[in-house]
Amino acid sequence: MHGLLYGGDWNPEQWPESVWAEDVRLMREAGVTMITLGVFSWARLQPGPDDWDFGWLDRLLDLLHAHGVAVDLATGTASPPAWLVRGHPEILPVTADGVRLEFGSRQHYCPSSPVYRAAAGRLARKIAERYAAHPALALWHIHNEYGDHVTECFCAESATDFRRWLRTRYGTIDALNHAWGTAFWAQRYGTFDEIEPPRTAPGPVNPTQNLDWRRFSSDALRECYRAEKAVLDELAPAVPVTTNFMSMFKPLDYWAWADEEDLVSDDAYPDPADPRAHVNAALDYDLMRSLKRGRPWLLMEQAPSAVSWRPVNVPKRPGLQRLWSLQALARGADGLMYFQWRASVAGAEKYHSALLPHRGTAGRGWRETVRFGAELARLGEVAGSRSRADVGILLDWDSWWALELDDHPSTRMRWRELLAGWYAALWERNIPVDFVRPGSPVDGYRVLVVPNLYLLRAEHAAWLGKFVAEGGHLVCGGFSAVVDENDHVHEGGAPGPLRELLGVAVDEWWPVPDGQSVPVRLGEERVVEATVWSEWLEPLTDGTEVLGTYDAGALRGLPAVTRKGSAWYVSCHLGEEVSSVLDPVLEEAGVRPVLPGVPDGVETTVRRGPDGAYLFLLNHGENSVDVPVPGWAGAELLTGEPVDGERPLRLPELGAAVIRGPR
Amino acid sequence: MHGLLYGGDWNPEQWPESVWAEDVRLMREAGVTMITLGVFSWARLQPGPDDWDFGWLDRLLDLLHAHGVAVDLATGTASPPAWLVRGHPEILPVTADGVRLEFGSRQHYCPSSPVYRAAAGRLARKIAERYAAHPALALWHIHNEYGDHVTECFCAESATDFRRWLRTRYGTIDALNHAWGTAFWAQRYGTFDEIEPPRTAPGPVNPTQNLDWRRFSSDALRECYRAEKAVLDELAPAVPVTTNFMSMFKPLDYWAWADEEDLVSDDAYPDPADPRAHVNAALDYDLMRSLKRGRPWLLMEQAPSAVSWRPVNVPKRPGLQRLWSLQALARGADGLMYFQWRASVAGAEKYHSALLPHRGTAGRGWRETVRFGAELARLGEVAGSRSRADVGILLDWDSWWALELDDHPSTRMRWRELLAGWYAALWERNIPVDFVRPGSPVDGYRVLVVPNLYLLRAEHAAWLGKFVAEGGHLVCGGFSAVVDENDHVHEGGAPGPLRELLGVAVDEWWPVPDGQSVPVRLGEERVVEATVWSEWLEPLTDGTEVLGTYDAGALRGLPAVTRKGSAWYVSCHLGEEVSSVLDPVLEEAGVRPVLPGVPDGVETTVRRGPDGAYLFLLNHGENSVDVPVPGWAGAELLTGEPVDGERPLRLPELGAAVIRGPR
Amino acid sequence: MHGLLYGGDWNPEQWPESVWAEDVRLMREAGVTMITLGVFSWARLQPGPDDWDFGWLDRLLDLLHAHGVAVDLATGTASPPAWLVRGHPEILPVTADGVRLEFGSRQHYCPSSPVYRAAAGRLARKIAERYAAHPALALWHIHNEYGDHVTECFCAESATDFRRWLRTRYGTIDALNHAWGTAFWAQRYGTFDEIEPPRTAPGPVNPTQNLDWRRFSSDALRECYRAEKAVLDELAPAVPVTTNFMSMFKPLDYWAWADEEDLVSDDAYPDPADPRAHVNAALDYDLMRSLKRGRPWLLMEQAPSAVSWRPVNVPKRPGLQRLWSLQALARGADGLMYFQWRASVAGAEKYHSALLPHRGTAGRGWRETVRFGAELARLGEVAGSRSRADVGILLDWDSWWALELDDHPSTRMRWRELLAGWYAALWERNIPVDFVRPGSPVDGYRVLVVPNLYLLRAEHAAWLGKFVAEGGHLVCGGFSAVVDENDHVHEGGAPGPLRELLGVAVDEWWPVPDGQSVPVRLGEERVVEATVWSEWLEPLTDGTEVLGTYDAGALRGLPAVTRKGSAWYVSCHLGEEVSSVLDPVLEEAGVRPVLPGVPDGVETTVRRGPDGAYLFLLNHGENSVDVPVPGWAGAELLTGEPVDGERPLRLPELGAAVIRGPR
Repeated sequence: MHGLLYGGDWNPEQWPESVWAEDVRLMREAGVTMITLGVFSWARLQPGPDDWDFGWLDRLLDLLHAHGVAVDLATGTASPPAWLVRGHPEILPVTADGVRLEFGSRQHYCPSSPVYRAAAGRLARKIAERYAAHPALALWHIHNEYGDHVTECFCAESATDFRRWLRTRYGTIDALNHAWGTAFWAQRYGTFDEIEPPRTAPGPVNPTQNLDWRRFSSDALRECYRAEKAVLDELAPAVPVTTNFMSMFKPLDYWAWADEEDLVSDDAYPDPADPRAHVNAALDYDLMRSLKRGRPWLLMEQAPSAVSWRPVNVPKRPGLQRLWSLQALARGADGLMYFQWRASVAGAEKYHSALLPHRGTAGRGWRETVRFGAELARLGEVAGSRSRADVGILLDWDSWWALELDDHPSTRMRWRELLAGWYAALWERNIPVDFVRPGSPVDGYRVLVVPNLYLLRAEHAAWLGKFVAEGGHLVCGGFSAVVDENDHVHEGGAPGPLRELLGVAVDEWWPVPDGQSVPVRLGEERVVEATVWSEWLEPLTDGTEVLGTYDAGALRGLPAVTRKGSAWYVSCHLGEEVSSVLDPVLEEAGVRPVLPGVPDGVETTVRRGPDGAYLFLLNHGENSVDVPVPGWAGAELLTGEPVDGERPLRLPELGAAVIRGPR
Repeated sequence: MHGLLYGGDWNPEQWPESVWAEDVRLMREAGVTMITLGVFSWARLQPGPDDWDFGWLDRLLDLLHAHGVAVDLATGTASPPAWLVRGHPEILPVTADGVRLEFGSRQHYCPSSPVYRAAAGRLARKIAERYAAHPALALWHIHNEYGDHVTECFCAESATDFRRWLRTRYGTIDALNHAWGTAFWAQRYGTFDEIEPPRTAPGPVNPTQNLDWRRFSSDALRECYRAEKAVLDELAPAVPVTTNFMSMFKPLDYWAWADEEDLVSDDAYPDPADPRAHVNAALDYDLMRSLKRGRPWLLMEQAPSAVSWRPVNVPKRPGLQRLWSLQALARGADGLMYFQWRASVAGAEKYHSALLPHRGTAGRGWRETVRFGAELARLGEVAGSRSRADVGILLDWDSWWALELDDHPSTRMRWRELLAGWYAALWERNIPVDFVRPGSPVDGYRVLVVPNLYLLRAEHAAWLGKFVAEGGHLVCGGFSAVVDENDHVHEGGAPGPLRELLGVAVDEWWPVPDGQSVPVRLGEERVVEATVWSEWLEPLTDGTEVLGTYDAGALRGLPAVTRKGSAWYVSCHLGEEVSSVLDPVLEEAGVRPVLPGVPDGVETTVRRGPDGAYLFLLNHGENSVDVPVPGWAGAELLTGEPVDGERPLRLPELGAAVIRGPR
Repeated sequence: MHGLLYGGDWNPEQWPESVWAEDVRLMREAGVTMITLGVFSWARLQPGPDDWDFGWLDRLLDLLHAHGVAVDLATGTASPPAWLVRGHPEILPVTADGVRLEFGSRQHYCPSSPVYRAAAGRLARKIAERYAAHPALALWHIHNEYGDHVTECFCAESATDFRRWLRTRYGTIDALNHAWGTAFWAQRYGTFDEIEPPRTAPGPVNPTQNLDWRRFSSDALRECYRAEKAVLDELAPAVPVTTNFMSMFKPLDYWAWADEEDLVSDDAYPDPADPRAHVNAALDYDLMRSLKRGRPWLLMEQAPSAVSWRPVNVPKRPGLQRLWSLQALARGADGLMYFQWRASVAGAEKYHSALLPHRGTAGRGWRETVRFGAELARLGEVAGSRSRADVGILLDWDSWWALELDDHPSTRMRWRELLAGWYAALWERNIPVDFVRPGSPVDGYRVLVVPNLYLLRAEHAAWLGKFVAEGGHLVCGGFSAVVDENDHVHEGGAPGPLRELLGVAVDEWWPVPDGQSVPVRLGEERVVEATVWSEWLEPLTDGTEVLGTYDAGALRGLPAVTRKGSAWYVSCHLGEEVSSVLDPVLEEAGVRPVLPGVPDGVETTVRRGPDGAYLFLLNHGENSVDVPVPGWAGAELLTGEPVDGERPLRLPELGAAVIRGPR
């Protein structure tokens, strides 16, 4: 694979072979370089337990190869065939209420089912054996969107697997009883055999049981992935392997998953009806790039226009799909793939837009497909280039899961919503950020932002302390460092092992009711409003400086924002107004935006490769703007026009530019 | 049966026989002419498997006959007795989640249950054998409100029946696989035995499976009906048969059902708290009249005042029940029946109003019962008369079901809401309309209105083309002609087989988000707002005239409303503002209102019989109004006063008049 | 027990024994006098079927006794251990949909389970045998919050028990068929064996079946309580027994429950985020005092600050917990206990505030714990004193259950919301009220308020008549006296057996739709708005005086409020505006507030004991106020300062005073 990938999922089983030749001809016309095949082909490839039909797929790979299109070949294990389900009904997943979900959709399997796992492994092996050496094969695509519909199963097989997982984790039932705090509410277990999944219960279920269930459920799906990966690695060691992620997805700990991928790929569906969709998309793309520490990733699925699964599915207006695709490139993608190549005429996704729409080559959609394919070809040199950031944002799935357990001071404290304000503040300033895994190397970052870290392990506390000790700037949001890995409150209360570092103690959580807010005074002039969350906070040391105070209500006069040395604590939820706290930190840490003087709404990133640096300018606003690009003398790659770095560049509404500069 | 029927359901099992004599005396006082008996009498008639008790019912029929009251005798099969359910628990219906619904309410049976069907048939036979020749018997009333609570059952018996139905429809599993598009998402079936009902699944279920399930479920209940009908026809061939419909009811294809009825009857419960209830009621009554192409129908159930099953049950204010009853007559009913005669003092419907309320003869309710009975007697000659319409509205249950499947461009596209605007526009102008079954004769109509026809079969496309070719005016709403009978998108996209006729192609669906709207410019002066739906529309021919364009947003300047010859296409949802499009069509087609110059809020219809024409004037407004009635010299039947056709008629608030004129 | 109790639940199983000594030391520091032990100790006390471990509990009781802390010892039966559930999975409760609820929370048992009942009885016996004579033992605490999570179970065991209960109630199946009105909808039962619990059914379930199910479910839990009570009474006859109630709790008929308690205790959790929480709390406390006709009760659980089970859990601001605790005293409590002593660090309630918070003795919480303990010690003499009221409010669980059955004129008629307006009107005026059980002695009351009595038995009608006949003033709200104990509408309609007494007949219910209101004219000047409910009301006698009329809509000019002699009828819902009706009644009846001239927001009550009277003044307002206390010369007990009865007393925001006066 070289240059930027362009293509999408193709489900040719839906049409007679006679249509395939036209498809491939049109792919060439559009500049398609890679096609994903076989995502939902299990029933076609294996019509019965010992019945295999590969001829049609042979012909497809040959055909694509003959036309110079590489193949991302799926193992097709996300949708087991009817005969397998009817022969082994225990494969079907079960809800927390005990409902066994029926065949007729997709992902109808229990992740812990030995029968499913064996059948999936057998299919993967057959495919790998047959195509490992095919010249069209460029990438393995395991399964599809793990956890899209079924992230957990409560059946008896899952219960057995959960107990196995718990035995491995805890060793003894006493260790589990301690970790789960079963002394409370008389939940003590005598043996592992007494444990079941956290099915619907009379009242709130043990929180640590729920937390372990989240961990187990992510792991159970990962076991499925690993089993297939092992087969592919064995039979085709040279071919990279991916599975398509679903952006920042709570059920799966993608840090752990990405460790076992050769290439990170993502399915991203920002909503054209959401005026802030591009900010959330930037966040997700930053995560994808961060998952393997900056290595280019692949946008495996996006929609050319509308999707079909929202209540109201608004299409992308002309120019929007181009802009949003370039955004993925700007944030580290090396390819842009779509769901799907040719629009289905039947089934659940027939109203999902496609590169080749129902109208065929007559409509707007096809014109944009062809036009963008040509543009992309001009950006080939960007492939492989990387970007860097001075700011890291901590992301820990374990803490996310724990944060959103039941019976907390406020159910409104949701990771994605807490994160959004911090991220948007940085995005608005065009400050590049990476997501950072707890415990990973952070010596390259000047500032580490921790919007929330409800669950904090002792070793991560030490790691944060080391970061600060070595000159880093830490900014930590409220309701952090509350519990340990067992969801036990740290001794002496929050922020537990960070009390020393931050120089504060939380006396009590003061969640803010819906529709209300609390003013926070930051210096003489500036008052911002906190929603959702506030804290009764006490400084612990003389070195603790109070930067902001609550300005009304029961907490009036108490500290809201503090710093001790280069460790900041923001006890309340400020949304995007957190910029009032962040800006001076960035200033002090010497963090600068990508480019100064960029108009509002213009997203700016830089990727650097061996042949130069690439400045991306993306105008998300509703007007045309002039963007000064001082120092960026070179060429604008989309147009091929030279850029002198002195005159500003004009970007129309939804306009974009990619400038190759010397540095 | 002659004259207009007046009466209601009577459940005398609830009281000692000693009360019956008073009931019958009061029926005479009120002018009651027909009583429905036995709707919920199964447990009383058959206390055990081989235990029958008909004596009490014998006495009731004799008593009613002796007092000149005819009987609408029910087969009583809607509520199987406890002993049957406990002896055969598999009779109980099962939800999509697998919950087997319990005895204790009504309609607790699986429509596909052989045990239920056999028991229902046996009961119907016993009743028919006993009463076929009873002189009181005027009408058979099969079952009660098929599908009111249970429109579908997901049990194993239903699964077997569904597979049988599918085998009949498709013949081979390959045909089914093609129709359902099972190549997508690997849903291919090897045999019919692998198919189950569309129970709750991990994600969206195959849409064609869901569509066939709708068809099957309507048919399964119809099978129940047909089995009883066959028994009654065999034993009492001269007695007409009905089952009470529930207005325009999605789960049952009443076109097919009405084919097998001798008389259409309806249960109608417009909500007094809804200021537009009468417009919706008019719509439902027009359907009932249309179901057998204009033959008089029977309002089998309405509430004298409040119902008891809404969250808040507002009564009918004085005069409202009279006005609304006359409305049913105005739209073709030949009788007005009520639920129920004497108010229950126990059970789930004790707060449902009755002709004889809890207060007995002391209260307002009884006074209105008696007064209206007397009025109705004066309108007897109206019975049997008919009305005609120049405008037909297409209604196709198959398309309705398909329209509202999941994973569409917008979940907000619901048939009843789309229809409402078109219907109201015509109602406001007092334009008579019929509902039209696809494929039926339409030579009598000048204009055919198609608010939506998402699913369009090839033969219906040809039928529409013929209508236009023969001089008809066709007005077709958006998101029409999208799929074929298998829910496959028509080749080349919408409006598929109507592209030629309408002269347009839809490039992309542009649903409008909730709370937003898009302006549509119709000529120089007129701008209306489209909500819910818009389309990227392209004219295909020079003959396509653009009558309206989108005036903002991504579609600005694109066509919104077009015509080609006498075929109009309205690509957006205009609600009642669609009148701006319809008015010129009606003008051009020569369609006139019933009466010119009628004040707003006055509903006007005409029925014609051998003895003259009957003009109905119904004042739904809140003020008294003067209605000019040019040409209507004759008599006002409610008062008996002469009308000279020159002076306007004064109608008080909620007032009504029925003028017999010569023509 | 003497003086006022102070303490809380302690779950020491959660910590190593080494911590216990510190706990007990801190209890002394805080002035704790009683501790509840063993509420969730079953799994610890009985680790296996024949395995008992009491040593740790022995040590705890000894330790507490040594430190002068009394013990409220729980039987611990609310949370059966895992081994019991796994050995007898049929213990687990089942929902109306058939979902068997899983272990992992608490209250995971079917109240009708013989296995559960036997195991609970065995545990209670073991505990009683061991500790009956322990000198620390002051109170038995059976179970915990009966019905908190599981108020009903739909399993087969429950069905058997329900049938047994029905046989006892009705004797014959004919009697049941009559009571349930099974003649309607063909629900007739041939034998009791055909009856099942009211599980989810196709449509509305028989209302009397649902009503009996409510009665049975309250009784089934009460059977559990009685079985344990019998064991404790047998083995420790001198030790009083309680179970902790949950304020005015619909599922359990606390009148019947309190009959079987030696001491009423309550768990009360008013929401600090609700500005009217203290009014609702006053209502609940009045009920607790009334349950045993004025005997002091025990606030068994309250939160020192925030709870953890609301969506957003706002803490109590400084001073609020003191004020609200004194409120319980003011309304008859003889002790203030908390959940819980030491904050849990794990489990579902770790964010529930505690007397000893996570921060330990460092924080605000502990300071308030200690400060209030010292204050409480100064109020010891209040213990045992009582209060009296001239006004009674009728409360009947049977009627409450029936009122809120389905298929009523309006689902918005909820007892707690109807009651709220009447209660608040009296609270605002500082009029003391008791709750009154139907049929109980009422000779001490001048006014009896009946916000709603939908279900009225004949004997209670007679009892109300007698009250009025003997000079009492009765004020009865709408939708009362509608049905008898079988939920059958009284003959002739409402208000059935009260028609004579009230002098009115209801012709029809006119519920008011959401968001609408109806003006009611009360005399020349005063118009108030009725929401939710109105009635078409007719005076029956000349003696019926119309005090208010509807002033718009269909009911314009009809009576809304009437009186006949000293029996008032208020046919509409006026919320707190009902004071316009109540005030003249109180005036006429000679009912006076506790103290005249008290500023708004200051709650005032009096308790009287052998040593004097105690005037409580509680300032719920947001400002400091001066309260005149004419005649209350004595001492303010919290400060020890003398009060001369002439100068007003100043109360700061959230301030309180307790004046001991001579009378």
